[in-house]
Amino acid sequence: MEAGLGGPPIPEESMSKLNPGMVVGRRSVLLGATTTIASASLVPYARAQGQTSDPLASWRDGPAKQAILDFVRTTTDQVPPEDRIATFDQDGTMWVEHPVYTQAMFALERLHALAPKHPEWKVREPFKAVLANDQAAIAKFSERDWAQIVFVTHAGMSQAEFQDIARQWLATAKHPRFNRPYTDLVYKPMREVMDYLRANSFKTYIVTGGGQDFVRAYAQQVYGVPPEQVVGSSVATKYEIKNGKPELMRLPKLFFDDDHAGKAIGIDLFIGKRPYAAFGNSTGDREMLEWTGAGNGTRLKMLVHHDDAQREYAYGPAGGLPDTKVGTFDQSLMGEAKAKGWTVISMKNDWKRIFAFE
Amino acid sequence: MEAGLGGPPIPEESMSKLNPGMVVGRRSVLLGATTTIASASLVPYARAQGQTSDPLASWRDGPAKQAILDFVRTTTDQVPPEDRIATFDQDGTMWVEHPVYTQAMFALERLHALAPKHPEWKVREPFKAVLANDQAAIAKFSERDWAQIVFVTHAGMSQAEFQDIARQWLATAKHPRFNRPYTDLVYKPMREVMDYLRANSFKTYIVTGGGQDFVRAYAQQVYGVPPEQVVGSSVATKYEIKNGKPELMRLPKLFFDDDHAGKAIGIDLFIGKRPYAAFGNSTGDREMLEWTGAGNGTRLKMLVHHDDAQREYAYGPAGGLPDTKVGTFDQSLMGEAKAKGWTVISMKNDWKRIFAFE
Repeated sequence: MEAGLGGPPIPEESMSKLNPGMVVGRRSVLLGATTTIASASLVPYARAQGQTSDPLASWRDGPAKQAILDFVRTTTDQVPPEDRIATFDQDGTMWVEHPVYTQAMFALERLHALAPKHPEWKVREPFKAVLANDQAAIAKFSERDWAQIVFVTHAGMSQAEFQDIARQWLATAKHPRFNRPYTDLVYKPMREVMDYLRANSFKTYIVTGGGQDFVRAYAQQVYGVPPEQVVGSSVATKYEIKNGKPELMRLPKLFFDDDHAGKAIGIDLFIGKRPYAAFGNSTGDREMLEWTGAGNGTRLKMLVHHDDAQREYAYGPAGGLPDTKVGTFDQSLMGEAKAKGWTVISMKNDWKRIFAFE
Repeated sequence: MEAGLGGPPIPEESMSKLNPGMVVGRRSVLLGATTTIASASLVPYARAQGQTSDPLASWRDGPAKQAILDFVRTTTDQVPPEDRIATFDQDGTMWVEHPVYTQAMFALERLHALAPKHPEWKVREPFKAVLANDQAAIAKFSERDWAQIVFVTHAGMSQAEFQDIARQWLATAKHPRFNRPYTDLVYKPMREVMDYLRANSFKTYIVTGGGQDFVRAYAQQVYGVPPEQVVGSSVATKYEIKNGKPELMRLPKLFFDDDHAGKAIGIDLFIGKRPYAAFGNSTGDREMLEWTGAGNGTRLKMLVHHDDAQREYAYGPAGGLPDTKVGTFDQSLMGEAKAKGWTVISMKNDWKRIFAFE
């Protein structure tokens, strides 16, 4: 348990990991303190690092912002630091998922890149439709079609090779509407929530239906979340000795589906502690929020509602867009949120700004 | 990167988690510093917490101890704290695994406890042999026999219920030779290595072929290792709503086999970083040490060799005991260790004392 100190404590993660160039970790502060502490208090030091008086500056005052502030105040009084776990869905919760998941875009573009080595794809579905850019056919792809596309683009290489491929793609790929790297399309208000929780000794996890290794390729850089705090879907891997060196080769076989009930299962499997806060935006996050809410004491359960067609997109209960196979925020989820007191975040009303580049 | 400070830095984990009663974490030290720092250096504070000048006091001087000291000196110069990962096998590496794994003992005793509700077991193998305490038959159990015993004793309840059952058993069960709780049978020298690594900003993981949830039931208390740093074998779980509350129910189905190649796979799956140090004692740890050793720079690979029949047991290359189906340290593993420069720890020669209670 920790009492406050006027401002939030200095977060190790947000200092040593989010800003790797700073080379200032909490321990370093402690060590540095032995020579400078006599003349300087630590509180001004923390403020000097750019902490504003409002940790949620991109949020408008309202019930959503208040719920976060109240939650942090209560849990930092009542919950030991080692139990302060917060889990965040990624697509649609932390960054843009429209018109398709970033990883699906990666898979489609990767298929084009690999096509010269696979002449048979020109006459075989679902590859043929992708190579012909047949958007109507792609929009109708079944789960099985997508699985085939994912397996030929996400398997057959080592884990290290896959992460390199993902990083190279992310460095150049751009979102069709915003014409910016996908990694720019992080919701600034949510990034502030992550930082604010970390500043209060929460360990922040990404819990995504997307590929664990794809997200690990950029989570440190984009969110300050290290690989061991990314839980996602994964393919099976095989240990092989190649040229005398062990490699973990990716197989075209699903190992773990970290979506819907899989999110509660994945949290228990990887973390083994029940979160105190969980953030999602679709039915795929339902069980994660239920699991979080079933714990004792104060728990924060929040859903991002995409109701801002002008600055981002409007879908789900806000309507506006056709079924795009991305995160579904349907009436049953809205009903459960109301019945259980989950907080629904209106992008339109609760967020002053959506992206850092605005 | 961190330079030394005369003594090892104050480890957050070993202070706030190993000694929960102390309520002194690194952050608290930092906060406390604002009022007391002017008159007190932090180094004496660390020493006052009971750190001796020799962090490996239970080790005799020799190549094994020197390898650990050299490794820590080199890596704390060269490896950023967030990459300092160390993985420890449990059975036979951190605590006694003879005459059978603790968890196998748990399964056998649990079967007796459940027998009144299962009259059919009296006439059905392998349960019949267990209930009749037929040691000869038990010694000959196949993998399939053990799987049946594990599934009826480790599945059918929720994750929370299982951990309660495991904790209750551990509170009363005693090792047949040492007549002490199994949790007393931790090798003190290995516990010192864990503490020493944590004091130098390593994150210490248990990577066990044993059951992840069984080990999580006591790893915090016994090793100061939190649940999210225990990687092990697991059964599948199912998300169910019971009386309006979600539960994760354990199924009689293996989900992940964290042994042999599974240890390298599990490390990549759960941690996503390659360890700098790995500790094992059997062929089940071979791939973990290979995977660790295949990384760049200095990596520590150690094998505990059970060659002390008097104080503990002698098996593997030291001979002495018949095949007990516990960790096999065979000639091929010894050959690989020699060829690759892995350090073999002789319990007899390298350890001054083996248990804390000696």
